[in-house]
Amino acid sequence: MKGELYKLSAVDAAQAIRDGRLSSEALVQSCLDQIAATNGVIKAWACLDPELALVQAREMDRIRRSGKATGALHGVPVGLKDIIDTRFMPTECGSEIFAGRVPEGDASIVNRLREAGAVIMGKLSTAEFAYLHPTDTTNPHNAAHTPGGSSSGSAAAVAAHHVPLAVGTQTGGSIIRPASFCGTYGAKPTRGLIPRTGLFRTSATLDQVGGFANTLEDLALLIDVLGCYDPADSDSFARPRPSLLDGARAQAPVEPDIAWFDLPFHDRLSPDAAAGLEVVIEALGPRVERFPTAPQLAELVSVHKTIYDYEIARQMTPIATEHGDRISSEMREAITRGYAISDDQYQDALGVKASANAFFTDHFNDFDAIMAPSASGEALPLSAGNTGDAVYCTIWTLAGLPCLTLPMLVGEAGLPIGVQLIGAVEEDDRLTRTAAWVQRALADDAE
Amino acid sequence: MKGELYKLSAVDAAQAIRDGRLSSEALVQSCLDQIAATNGVIKAWACLDPELALVQAREMDRIRRSGKATGALHGVPVGLKDIIDTRFMPTECGSEIFAGRVPEGDASIVNRLREAGAVIMGKLSTAEFAYLHPTDTTNPHNAAHTPGGSSSGSAAAVAAHHVPLAVGTQTGGSIIRPASFCGTYGAKPTRGLIPRTGLFRTSATLDQVGGFANTLEDLALLIDVLGCYDPADSDSFARPRPSLLDGARAQAPVEPDIAWFDLPFHDRLSPDAAAGLEVVIEALGPRVERFPTAPQLAELVSVHKTIYDYEIARQMTPIATEHGDRISSEMREAITRGYAISDDQYQDALGVKASANAFFTDHFNDFDAIMAPSASGEALPLSAGNTGDAVYCTIWTLAGLPCLTLPMLVGEAGLPIGVQLIGAVEEDDRLTRTAAWVQRALADDAE
Repeated sequence: MKGELYKLSAVDAAQAIRDGRLSSEALVQSCLDQIAATNGVIKAWACLDPELALVQAREMDRIRRSGKATGALHGVPVGLKDIIDTRFMPTECGSEIFAGRVPEGDASIVNRLREAGAVIMGKLSTAEFAYLHPTDTTNPHNAAHTPGGSSSGSAAAVAAHHVPLAVGTQTGGSIIRPASFCGTYGAKPTRGLIPRTGLFRTSATLDQVGGFANTLEDLALLIDVLGCYDPADSDSFARPRPSLLDGARAQAPVEPDIAWFDLPFHDRLSPDAAAGLEVVIEALGPRVERFPTAPQLAELVSVHKTIYDYEIARQMTPIATEHGDRISSEMREAITRGYAISDDQYQDALGVKASANAFFTDHFNDFDAIMAPSASGEALPLSAGNTGDAVYCTIWTLAGLPCLTLPMLVGEAGLPIGVQLIGAVEEDDRLTRTAAWVQRALADDAE
Repeated sequence: MKGELYKLSAVDAAQAIRDGRLSSEALVQSCLDQIAATNGVIKAWACLDPELALVQAREMDRIRRSGKATGALHGVPVGLKDIIDTRFMPTECGSEIFAGRVPEGDASIVNRLREAGAVIMGKLSTAEFAYLHPTDTTNPHNAAHTPGGSSSGSAAAVAAHHVPLAVGTQTGGSIIRPASFCGTYGAKPTRGLIPRTGLFRTSATLDQVGGFANTLEDLALLIDVLGCYDPADSDSFARPRPSLLDGARAQAPVEPDIAWFDLPFHDRLSPDAAAGLEVVIEALGPRVERFPTAPQLAELVSVHKTIYDYEIARQMTPIATEHGDRISSEMREAITRGYAISDDQYQDALGVKASANAFFTDHFNDFDAIMAPSASGEALPLSAGNTGDAVYCTIWTLAGLPCLTLPMLVGEAGLPIGVQLIGAVEEDDRLTRTAAWVQRALADDAE
């Protein structure tokens, strides 16, 4: 195969490698060239060892030539947010405190990727400890803007075609927001679908793994590969997992029904995002039902914050105690806030969270998905000093619902804006099926 | 669905459950009825809790009705050799020393089965510590005969249609021989394909996991579900795994080539087995090439024994020290033999093992499979006091090659005799494809 190999979708690249029309080495070299050409500005990578990537690529080519089994991502390069442990590359978690740290073992999801034949391309920049303090990564659409966070490098690397796939994590909005800002697809699947063993923990209750891609099918394939039961993760469930790829490729048996809530924090949405979403709702016509704001939803934002602050403060205490002068003011403030929350307040918040799940479960009896903003608008300028507002993501993260963002809109400054779809727990395949339908409906409408 | 549900293949049952034509509860109840009717004589089960099986079945039915994802073995009952740890059932390893022992965690393969939606039916009788001393299980074809060992209950339960699938292990011939004796399909896949974490260990070098079924496709599906990378098992490999089911369903691109070695211990083969194998070789005509015995092969049998004795002696020492009066004479003798082997002799044996792998790898450049006896003939009478001769299995186990036994022959006493096929490492899919071809060729020949 010739041409811009680095722009191939993961689905197409894996098929071409399996068929012998493309070598993993050529694909990985093309991606490395693209990184070399553009990473000076984008700064997506925390660790990149081109030779180590090529060694893996040649090994995948050797396996294929030998006639042995090939995997679902055979020879396809994947980038990892740098809070995911790898025993062959440093894992620094976006903090100088962890500079040069090489973990003893691989995260469970790294094992899953290797079993699928993926090439672990390198580690992608993250906000400090996957929280708020930004890394120096820039938005591939405009280097004066943030890529969003905390999975900053993961979103930017996929948007810049450094790799077709990248893994990220979300505790508030750390996948959906950067995907929206960078114009990629992003997914945070159902809580417990993907195991977190071997990842830096900020909140046992809220942390989840997901990913970034440039097509819906690529994203679905990545999540399918990452998903598995892992008894070492208390959230992981020992039940069959939905196939997101089957969902993305399926025809809905009937046209899906989508719910839209007038969220209580709608005033934080920028005018261009609000107008764009109205166009989408209009185009989908009777398939979207609008609901007045439910008072529960505003409360859930603060419940999420209570749980997050309480838990991250306790997770960070050992590091803060030893390296207090080397953590950001954002993190120090979170720790202070977290210790100001009483155990009773925290337990109350966990109780509200449980009731939120029941509220949403009811809704998904009548609707296939909820539609919502992915972020408050276009990517903020770097000068804002932060990675953007997570308020449109935290509710669904709290409830453990699967979330997708689709790159469907363009804002006033010409930067991408995503549209978020939220599905029922453990029905991630219904969600990708609904997303594929929405995309087709809007493409038909545009014609 | 009506009729003898317990006789459904796993492939058909899983499809019927997914389609809503069959409930897991009805299937499991039918299997439980079959067990109740026949286990008094067969004595396949070490632990069976009908209510616990039905609870799992109802849960799988609930998941399916909810529209959530179903797994590859959704609602299908599977039995486990009783050296496989389960935290919800005792795991006694065929020894009174472990009576009532309930492990703290599930074996990796139990997690895999649960992720596939399988119902863990119960635990199946095993020879003492998966070694030689027989359990009281009888052969479903004739209760005066042994089912073979050490996976005695696993083979008998599948042959008696107590469950469509059972998991076993093989260190010498503990899957292939009982499958041959009981007239089931049996597989011991490539070393490292299936993880052993959470299984009683006798030999880290030789122990492997496999399974039993009544059809080739069922067996392939079971092995595919069990296979995964597990870094906690030193044999497990972090590479893509072949799909045995794809192999079993594939048409070979050309007719396969099969090698037959005149094994140096051919004189231990019974006349009916020898004659039956000649009929098979004859029917396959030019597809089988006969080789005079290679002197290496006789040596490999003793190399296998050296490694096995050396390692099992050391594994058993803590138990033998504490409970010396409660282990069998077979085991005591193995421990004595094991400690008579010097470290140098053991290291030499490991060296020969490595060279054996190279010998076989060469052969598989020219051949798709080796054909061999599965056992020395029909199942021995119980009065013989042992579970049969493993000599036709140990070489391939030593070399880590994938092995299948197909129930193709019937001996003088009307008991089944298997035909063994051995494939190239990590090409288990080529092996199932070859096996399917052999079956079709012989079926055509019989018409």
